[in-house]
Amino acid sequence: MIDVTISEVGPRDGLQNIDCVLPTADKLRWIEALAAAGLPEIEVGSCVSPKLLPQMADTVEVARSARTLDVQIAVLVPNLKGVERILPERPDKISLPLSVSETHSRRNVNRSHEEMFAEIAAIAGRLKELPKAERPHFEVGLSTAFGCTIEGPVSEALVVDLAVRAVRTGADEVGLSDTTGCGNPSQVRRLIRAVRSEVGSEKLTGIHLHNTRGQGLANALAALEEGLTTLDASLGGLGGCPFAPGASGNIVTEDLVFMLEAMGLNTGVDFDALMRAREALIGVLPREIPIFGFTPDAGLPLGMRVGAR
Amino acid sequence: MIDVTISEVGPRDGLQNIDCVLPTADKLRWIEALAAAGLPEIEVGSCVSPKLLPQMADTVEVARSARTLDVQIAVLVPNLKGVERILPERPDKISLPLSVSETHSRRNVNRSHEEMFAEIAAIAGRLKELPKAERPHFEVGLSTAFGCTIEGPVSEALVVDLAVRAVRTGADEVGLSDTTGCGNPSQVRRLIRAVRSEVGSEKLTGIHLHNTRGQGLANALAALEEGLTTLDASLGGLGGCPFAPGASGNIVTEDLVFMLEAMGLNTGVDFDALMRAREALIGVLPREIPIFGFTPDAGLPLGMRVGAR
Repeated sequence: MIDVTISEVGPRDGLQNIDCVLPTADKLRWIEALAAAGLPEIEVGSCVSPKLLPQMADTVEVARSARTLDVQIAVLVPNLKGVERILPERPDKISLPLSVSETHSRRNVNRSHEEMFAEIAAIAGRLKELPKAERPHFEVGLSTAFGCTIEGPVSEALVVDLAVRAVRTGADEVGLSDTTGCGNPSQVRRLIRAVRSEVGSEKLTGIHLHNTRGQGLANALAALEEGLTTLDASLGGLGGCPFAPGASGNIVTEDLVFMLEAMGLNTGVDFDALMRAREALIGVLPREIPIFGFTPDAGLPLGMRVGAR
Repeated sequence: MIDVTISEVGPRDGLQNIDCVLPTADKLRWIEALAAAGLPEIEVGSCVSPKLLPQMADTVEVARSARTLDVQIAVLVPNLKGVERILPERPDKISLPLSVSETHSRRNVNRSHEEMFAEIAAIAGRLKELPKAERPHFEVGLSTAFGCTIEGPVSEALVVDLAVRAVRTGADEVGLSDTTGCGNPSQVRRLIRAVRSEVGSEKLTGIHLHNTRGQGLANALAALEEGLTTLDASLGGLGGCPFAPGASGNIVTEDLVFMLEAMGLNTGVDFDALMRAREALIGVLPREIPIFGFTPDAGLPLGMRVGAR
């Protein structure tokens, strides 16, 4: 029984931040290693325009192959069109990014809040046409919820409003995303409480954090202590821009697994197999892409074991 | 008014972990920049045998010069002999490392627990001879309190016993040290509660954390939420061994300042001046020594200011 679900987002969030296009076979080798390590959920790609993100052009094919593995498949979708593309592959979860910063929303998906709610409504309607057993879980991720690199501070009241509206418009759940790595633990606690008090605890169970300012695990701890049970992370902290020295991507799966397991929480992950997945990742990534994480180099403390229970 | 005291330990803990011997003038330039950034306390060195740690041979001289700065001066001492050496410089604080792992204690200071308690008694006796205004604060740091690289897991009951005995033997205060970076947030909370319930909250106010497995800020957050008010850290996370890839030293002052200030806590630190101190450090350190920290590269989030209040 897993206590905390680590949703591995490297194949989506990690790759979209780097320039190279990874061959499909390489992606699949890496995803297979992630699944073999016991990670319960993998975001395998995003159904965006291949012109905008050629790295994601093979997402449907990747999802199809990953479907055969013993792992939940998540896919990012910016709109109904993306949903239609991925539905035949029967993803377990689809995530739509709704930027709290409208400026960011326009730059990211070229849509205003109003236009995004129209997409949410259309997607929710489309999913209702499916038999229940075939419906993916529909999450709306509130991007830039902790601050925006264009607008600066983001109104917490607006985060709550958008969350409420997303749920009313048909999302199964909302998630909080610290897209820009601006967040701090107090803000994480405050925002989770504010959103949950309006949409209900069962409609906010996950958070997506970046380690841009080194706060990843501290923010994850705060989220965990507030009762969230799904934490996004990426192997090797993938997602840093190779042209921004020191910039980091998502929180590092390896260090997160150590933290949770050391705290006595079951992640379902086998640490040795996770190290093999890290090797697989290093094997397929171009050398100039930085890989993060301290626990892989330090190893587990003497006497500690992290194996699937 | 400062809410959290960051005790900068780079000039002691950072330098003792690297091979090069920094010229005294370089150390002082770095320490001056740290003080100018508003850090309230600096551990400037340790009074150990110069044969064992040539990096620390000039500690008395460094302390004498640093005394003229507007900053509290802390010095590590392994025994009464070290105390005698530093007393004429009127340090504000002296810290004696008492390893919970007796194996580590023998290797680190070549003394058993019994021998260390004899030192503690002798030091406490010596300090009582001084007029109160001239007495440095005497802290006993419980090293390897979260695990030992030689013995493995460490008994929490033993940590509490040693803490109680250190206070009874005359220490003004005990501190918890995660010397090996084994600790996790649950353990931090548990151990703080256990020790404080036996020695009283005022006798445990500080913690010394390493970022060996990336848990530094998460552990610092847990300590803070348990009510501790002094956190050791080092600029650039100095302390990693240049021959152990990825091994990190203490928690990174820059990222810690960002976390605390973003949480609305005053550290007294001016961020721009802290960046100048980082430049000063980089300027005096050999190139092969790794420098850590994410916030310096990412910068503060748009719209945030961290200046002395």
